[in-house]
Amino acid sequence: MMTLAEIRAFLDREFPQIVAEGRYTVEALRPRGARLRAAYHENQIRPGGTISGPTMMALADVSLYVTVLASIGPMALAVTTNLNINFLRRPAPRDLISDCRLLKLGNRLAVGEVSIFSEGEEEPVAHVTGTYSIPPR
Amino acid sequence: MMTLAEIRAFLDREFPQIVAEGRYTVEALRPRGARLRAAYHENQIRPGGTISGPTMMALADVSLYVTVLASIGPMALAVTTNLNINFLRRPAPRDLISDCRLLKLGNRLAVGEVSIFSEGEEEPVAHVTGTYSIPPR
Amino acid sequence: MMTLAEIRAFLDREFPQIVAEGRYTVEALRPRGARLRAAYHENQIRPGGTISGPTMMALADVSLYVTVLASIGPMALAVTTNLNINFLRRPAPRDLISDCRLLKLGNRLAVGEVSIFSEGEEEPVAHVTGTYSIPPR
Amino acid sequence: MMTLAEIRAFLDREFPQIVAEGRYTVEALRPRGARLRAAYHENQIRPGGTISGPTMMALADVSLYVTVLASIGPMALAVTTNLNINFLRRPAPRDLISDCRLLKLGNRLAVGEVSIFSEGEEEPVAHVTGTYSIPPR
Repeated sequence: MMTLAEIRAFLDREFPQIVAEGRYTVEALRPRGARLRAAYHENQIRPGGTISGPTMMALADVSLYVTVLASIGPMALAVTTNLNINFLRRPAPRDLISDCRLLKLGNRLAVGEVSIFSEGEEEPVAHVTGTYSIPPR
Repeated sequence: MMTLAEIRAFLDREFPQIVAEGRYTVEALRPRGARLRAAYHENQIRPGGTISGPTMMALADVSLYVTVLASIGPMALAVTTNLNINFLRRPAPRDLISDCRLLKLGNRLAVGEVSIFSEGEEEPVAHVTGTYSIPPR
Repeated sequence: MMTLAEIRAFLDREFPQIVAEGRYTVEALRPRGARLRAAYHENQIRPGGTISGPTMMALADVSLYVTVLASIGPMALAVTTNLNINFLRRPAPRDLISDCRLLKLGNRLAVGEVSIFSEGEEEPVAHVTGTYSIPPR
Repeated sequence: MMTLAEIRAFLDREFPQIVAEGRYTVEALRPRGARLRAAYHENQIRPGGTISGPTMMALADVSLYVTVLASIGPMALAVTTNLNINFLRRPAPRDLISDCRLLKLGNRLAVGEVSIFSEGEEEPVAHVTGTYSIPPR
């Protein structure tokens, strides 16, 4: 399994555009799990003062990717094959926190779930399940 | 919230075909959550000795229905609008146990997740999210 | 690709329990597509006179399986990994017709969609997407 | 139903940030359907030269929103409740085209599907189903 420092270095090197300016931060790693933060920016706002759906989908996708990567190592180029999101509550205009855990880590497929929260809230604003295809090694 | 005895009596009365012969049993209720058991029967088996996907989907659907009903009361006729299932591992030929919890209980929609296990196993065989539409009261 | 006669013979032999008594009939095959019928039976009925959700989920699962199998041949043991269903309208108490087409037929994954109709109706009662994992050959 | 000119004017006024610089263009409207274009930009690219998943999710979300809005009128503030995406093929580094159609337009919920293509290709790169909650009018 990769360490927090290793995964951060990997993202800095391979995905500079998504970690630039602190857009996403990996806050914690655990076996088969991770917690990430997506920094609030006013261009995420939609009419009514809520954060856009794609902002939450993107956070979920990054969270699943990071969790799979930390579990199988940085060589593999895993790709998302399915993502299902339920929007539960209107997020407040502040940082989003994701909590991801893998439900399955197989040879060919990894499946995980992600709960997304407005920072400081207990009830999730969205819930996601996603599948990653793992290439032959 | 309905009690375990109330929900069992309701299902016996309204859904005799699905609780007949112990096919489904509500084993436990908690706020916004429930645990059910689906009795194993050899007609659930598919080639390779595994339990069919529809058996697990049906258990998830009943579990969500029971959990919503126990939370909003028996008058409402909630209907499933969406169900998403990820099959994770091959279930053994024995009883299935479901663990359901609601992620949201709104005025119009309830959203929940269900983990399904082969009895006695720790890793889930399937994971489900579902949405129920709640009629105006 | 398998012919209609070949796929029917395969199902009779390998899945006698699901085609018994005309429960499911493969009515037509085309490249990457199939149309099936699920015979109405009163044990599919739920309160309010509608056909149960699991009846529709099971039809979708069989439809996807048949379409994948007809496309890749009977040796492979494909397994469902994900199924997502949206319930759109209340089905009438009569036969259900499914129309399935594959969106992708890869080496490792097949993805398809299924529209389900009450016989004789133009608007679908449910819409399904599903993924099958195809074992190495 | 809104006209193409009306929906474009509505988006310019209410969602300047998503139509700015031609990011999304509504190319065609039909009853219960729409075709949109997402302009290619190099910041959508991920390692391997493919367009990011969130770029496709965002296009699907906008496409569903536009199609629902064009069908029910601009007063209503519909919100996404569920979105399910299957990634089918690697998109080329060029514009994406979406084709959206509503499967159901009810009083409370609208359900639609979206196929997403790389411009000029016949096979979709992604397929999406989504649900919108329609507020009481």
